Amino acid sequence: MSTFYKEDCPLTDIRRYLEPGPIVLVSSAWQDKTNIMTMGWHMMMGFSPALFGCYIWEGNHSFEMIRRSKQCVINIPTTDLLNEVIGIGNCSGNEIDKFETFGLTPIPADTVEVPLIEECYANFECHLADASQIENYSLFIWEVVKAHVAILPAWPKTLHYRGEGEFMVSGGSISRHRQFKPQNL
Amino acid sequence: MSTFYKEDCPLTDIRRYLEPGPIVLVSSAWQDKTNIMTMGWHMMMGFSPALFGCYIWEGNHSFEMIRRSKQCVINIPTTDLLNEVIGIGNCSGNEIDKFETFGLTPIPADTVEVPLIEECYANFECHLADASQIENYSLFIWEVVKAHVAILPAWPKTLHYRGEGEFMVSGGSISRHRQFKPQNL
Repeated sequence: MSTFYKEDCPLTDIRRYLEPGPIVLVSSAWQDKTNIMTMGWHMMMGFSPALFGCYIWEGNHSFEMIRRSKQCVINIPTTDLLNEVIGIGNCSGNEIDKFETFGLTPIPADTVEVPLIEECYANFECHLADASQIENYSLFIWEVVKAHVAILPAWPKTLHYRGEGEFMVSGGSISRHRQFKPQNL
Repeated sequence: MSTFYKEDCPLTDIRRYLEPGPIVLVSSAWQDKTNIMTMGWHMMMGFSPALFGCYIWEGNHSFEMIRRSKQCVINIPTTDLLNEVIGIGNCSGNEIDKFETFGLTPIPADTVEVPLIEECYANFECHLADASQIENYSLFIWEVVKAHVAILPAWPKTLHYRGEGEFMVSGGSISRHRQFKPQNL
C-alpha cells in the first residue's frame, strides 16, 4: 500500500478529487467503535461552504453510527487498495473491526472524532450539514470542513465502480484550460 | 463524431454508466426552445424507482427551462465530443441554439418532450420526482423512466471533470465479480 505525504487542501479545490466520481471509503466512529464502508453514490453540492452529498443505505452498519455522530471522513483510495475496497464492501462492521482486518491505519482527524485512513490519497473531514433528506432518500448532506490531500502524484489512480463487480480505473488527463471562460473554470 | 446503435437498457442497470461519475450533457426544452448544458455534479439515488440527483445552478439558462418543464434528458458523451462538451459549457442557450451551433442531432424521446442527443453514448429520459430541494440546494431529484444505451463499445470512453479545464479520461476495466457476495453486486 502507498504512503502519502499530505498537506491541507483549500476546500474550494476538493471538487478536483470528488467530481470525477471515484469510489470512496467512508470512515465513522460512535461510542468507541470505528467502521469503514465503501461508497459510490455521491456528489459535490457546493463550493463555499464545501457541500457534499452521499447516499448511505440504512441497511449498512455505518448508517446508524454516522446518523448519530453526525460526522464522517470521506477517504479516497487508489487502485493499490482495490482488494481492501472490495473486502470492506463485502463484510459488516457489526462483526469485525475493519481497520484491523484490512490493515489500515486510523489517524486522528482535526475537527471530527472519526479517524482518517492513512493509506488513502485524500481525507475529507465532514460535519453533517442537513439531516432532512436522510429519511426519504438516505441522503446525507455534509459540509467538508478540512481536507488533507497527497502532494504526489498530481492525479491519483482512482477506482470508479460500475456495479456487477466491475471497476473503471482512471486514465489519462486532458487539459483544455484555454478553451474555458475564466468564470467557468 | 461517433454514431451509436442503441437499445433500451433496464433501468436497474443505468448505474453502470452514471456511478463512475462522467460529465454529462443535459438536454431540455421549454416553449419551443431547446437547450443543452454540461454538468458534472450528479449521483445515483435509487435503483427502483431509478432515482438520480443533479445540481443545476440557478444562473444556468437551463435552470428555469428544466424547473418549468419538469423534464430533462441526461446524455453521456464520449471523448470524441470533448470540444462540444467544453463549448456547450462555455456559452449560453440564451444567445444561441446549442444543437445547431455544435452540430448535434436532436432525436425525439419516448416519454418526455425533450430531445435526446443522438451523438451521445447513452440517453436517459427523466421526469422530475421531487422539486423540494431545488430552492435550498439547486438539487433536482429525477426518476429515470427510459434508458437508451449503445450496444458497442461495452464501456464508453468517458470524460470526468476535475475543474480548472482539466478532464480525466476513463481508463481500463477491472472485473472482480467473484470477490463480491451476490447481494452486494
